[in-house]
Amino acid sequence: VVGMVFSVASNAAEPLSSWRDGATRDAIVRFVTEVSDTSSSAYVSPSERIAVFDNDGTLWAEQPMYFQLMFAIHRVEAMAADHPEWKTREPFASLLKGDVAAALAGGMPAIVELVMETHANVSTDEFAAAVNDWLATARHPKTGYKYTEMVYQPMLELLDYLRANGFTTYIVSGGGIDFMRPWTEAVYGIPPEQVVGSSVKTRYEVLDGVPTLVRAPEMNFIDDKEGKPVGIHTHIGRRPIMAVGNSDGDFQMLEWVTARPGPSLGVIVHHTDAERAWAYDRDSHIGKLDRALDEGPDRGWVIVDMKSDWREVFAGPE
Amino acid sequence: VVGMVFSVASNAAEPLSSWRDGATRDAIVRFVTEVSDTSSSAYVSPSERIAVFDNDGTLWAEQPMYFQLMFAIHRVEAMAADHPEWKTREPFASLLKGDVAAALAGGMPAIVELVMETHANVSTDEFAAAVNDWLATARHPKTGYKYTEMVYQPMLELLDYLRANGFTTYIVSGGGIDFMRPWTEAVYGIPPEQVVGSSVKTRYEVLDGVPTLVRAPEMNFIDDKEGKPVGIHTHIGRRPIMAVGNSDGDFQMLEWVTARPGPSLGVIVHHTDAERAWAYDRDSHIGKLDRALDEGPDRGWVIVDMKSDWREVFAGPE
Ligand SMILES: [Ca+2]
Ligand SMILES: [Ca+2]
Repeated sequence: VVGMVFSVASNAAEPLSSWRDGATRDAIVRFVTEVSDTSSSAYVSPSERIAVFDNDGTLWAEQPMYFQLMFAIHRVEAMAADHPEWKTREPFASLLKGDVAAALAGGMPAIVELVMETHANVSTDEFAAAVNDWLATARHPKTGYKYTEMVYQPMLELLDYLRANGFTTYIVSGGGIDFMRPWTEAVYGIPPEQVVGSSVKTRYEVLDGVPTLVRAPEMNFIDDKEGKPVGIHTHIGRRPIMAVGNSDGDFQMLEWVTARPGPSLGVIVHHTDAERAWAYDRDSHIGKLDRALDEGPDRGWVIVDMKSDWREVFAGPE
Repeated sequence: VVGMVFSVASNAAEPLSSWRDGATRDAIVRFVTEVSDTSSSAYVSPSERIAVFDNDGTLWAEQPMYFQLMFAIHRVEAMAADHPEWKTREPFASLLKGDVAAALAGGMPAIVELVMETHANVSTDEFAAAVNDWLATARHPKTGYKYTEMVYQPMLELLDYLRANGFTTYIVSGGGIDFMRPWTEAVYGIPPEQVVGSSVKTRYEVLDGVPTLVRAPEMNFIDDKEGKPVGIHTHIGRRPIMAVGNSDGDFQMLEWVTARPGPSLGVIVHHTDAERAWAYDRDSHIGKLDRALDEGPDRGWVIVDMKSDWREVFAGPE
């Protein structure tokens, strides 16, 4: 009986169990072991043991489009009654006819307009409630999972493994900071103060006697590409020792982290699994991975091959 | 012998020993005790037990002028050789002649120009080193203390007391975030990621192959007045339960925090001690305290009378 208990406990404690044995898992374990080992020349004190993770395509999926864009489309439908002008104005008109492709044909300007109109002129509290309401019921069109079930099981295990070894884990995402914070603690174990993202300008106002933070329809900060090291500096004020991403939007973040003096680790998730998820890289509009795929290996970055390195992909329903 | 050891341990553990017994200390202790007591209806979970502190005039002194302005003046002298044009350009010309009053007669525009020119066009690493170099040797003109010895002993004890009761302590200051972060952990026990402040725009660049964050001569965010609740939202993403300040620049921060549903505490430090420090409030250009002094008591804010509530003022040399 004692033997059985020990055996169960040992399995439960096995870190990174959804990662297959191999060079990728070994590189991660070796790095974490070395920086946590007080007798190692690569030892790093816990306060500096900071790991930053991109979100879309790194911690959760981003196909067939960014999930925040799914939320924006939902908001158009929910808000349409208060915006009769949308019936004749793109990209809203196409969306309201159900033609997502036509709506998004306007490219980034259309997407920015969509996000501004659906994410602003509400209080931060109202916006957080709208995000949570949507996540409670919305389903992914391919898998039928809730969006918060479209998170990668191996990455949940990696976050746990890092925290068990004294790391502090941050999200550094191009997605909206206020779109992520309502749910990242429950889903990833990452509290709001450890989430860095893009933001709109926010105003403090006393409305009918009630102090309120109002989201303005104006970009404040874009936490992508060259913005990621800036966002890290603004929010954390220290240089992380580990960075994990999946696209060229993470290039500068990995470059900044892995150029630090002392030990560091850069990790790129390569979407190679067309069967269990999606396969895309250089030619994708979403999560384009080109330069980082070319230069990553020479820079010592670990490239995760999703198809061969991961035993499981999505966390799925509990 | 055992009795003596217990007695010493008990004195050492006495919290807030530089605070005199009375209504102010009682109000703070009562609040902290209640929100930390799982059997109290006012109990708040540790993750939400967040306290925010203004810095200038709240954690350290701000007379005869903001210490960051002292640093800027020092930088003018240090950088003058590379800026021959300053000899004929205000406010630099007056400063280089030693006439601080004439330099500052230009008001806020002169101060902003001074700070922009002396705090920008350097890397974040170079700037942090310049701050630390200055703090290591500069002395306060009145006391002869180092500036980091001009911190308030009762506030150091309050920070310790809060953290011992499960609080996370943040600075939310109008001062520069990059001016504070190099030293707040050593002096206050507040790490860089828990410092919120004003900032300049920062650019990520690879200079001669070296990834670098460069401070641009352009304001990014002013963390004062209506900006303080915005800075709290951006950096923390939760509403604190306790806020401590000393001027009308903290009004909106205390208003935002003490209007939250559930228990909260607002504290204003009133500079009433002309003998041990300085006495100023409504008519002061630095740390003007007017509206918060009028409305604070009706809003339930605790007003600290520095002269009568504090047994000691400055931490001073070790
Ligand atoms: Ca991504
Ligand atoms: Ca102040």
